[in-house]
Amino acid sequence: MTDRIAEFFRKAGIVITDAERASLEVADFGLNDLENTGLEILTYVNTARCCAKELVLFPRQTCPEHRHPPVGGGEGKEETFRCRWGKVYLFVEGEETPHRAVEPPEGVYTVFRQIELNPGDQYTLPPNTKHWFQAGGDGAVISEFSTQSRDDADIFTDRRIIR
Amino acid sequence: MTDRIAEFFRKAGIVITDAERASLEVADFGLNDLENTGLEILTYVNTARCCAKELVLFPRQTCPEHRHPPVGGGEGKEETFRCRWGKVYLFVEGEETPHRAVEPPEGVYTVFRQIELNPGDQYTLPPNTKHWFQAGGDGAVISEFSTQSRDDADIFTDRRIIR
Repeated sequence: MTDRIAEFFRKAGIVITDAERASLEVADFGLNDLENTGLEILTYVNTARCCAKELVLFPRQTCPEHRHPPVGGGEGKEETFRCRWGKVYLFVEGEETPHRAVEPPEGVYTVFRQIELNPGDQYTLPPNTKHWFQAGGDGAVISEFSTQSRDDADIFTDRRIIR
Repeated sequence: MTDRIAEFFRKAGIVITDAERASLEVADFGLNDLENTGLEILTYVNTARCCAKELVLFPRQTCPEHRHPPVGGGEGKEETFRCRWGKVYLFVEGEETPHRAVEPPEGVYTVFRQIELNPGDQYTLPPNTKHWFQAGGDGAVISEFSTQSRDDADIFTDRRIIR
């Protein structure tokens, strides 16, 4: 699995250290269907104030719908996704895009405004906005720039999901 | 100049859009000696809460010594530098490194604890810490992940500098 993820970083031209390679996180969101619903994560920094990660999606893999609610008196997590390699379809709240390019996997999905991100494209999500995203046929590498990441606070639309 | 900067992004494998290419910032810090003291900047996002940039340094170019003080009741800017391509020597407060690899250009420099960053290496600076950095002989591309960037609030050790 590590080799498979590292190959995406290699293709994206992103150099990671051996220690980072050993710290790669694989999230199947408790659904045990990683090829369809999952996310691979390298966290560069995550302090009380800001966070940066690289996200890998395998081909057609989906990070399921969720939002980042206010935590501990502060606003929820604000995040920017920047596509580095491959292609990603990001879905957010708003008017449903007709003839969307992809369908979500099995699960509970409620927002369907499509934003297509190719390398160099990025999108900033306000806090507490429902969103999900799926890679194109080659997979994707996405940089995430955000305020503090608190995975335990995330609220998934599909209540079966455990993060 | 734009072509020269864009070539560093190409070598680092970083895709930028035409709009971003047109928005590249060149800072000579008012010293009119860009090849020695300067920084080239692409800002991806800079909100009230977080900021991400790519920084380019030409060969042996130096970003001069400065710190990010508290602003408007909050703490100062916290930032992480991650070397993507080339090599950068970062100097921070602390015990002076014997036999440092590089010398600063003409100007006022007071901190000399050396941290060498090669691709994949990163370093997180606490707020309000004096620092400066110089690229190696090939130049460098550095990702910066931080809280809000307020260039006008930066305090440079060399009081001739205007940001």
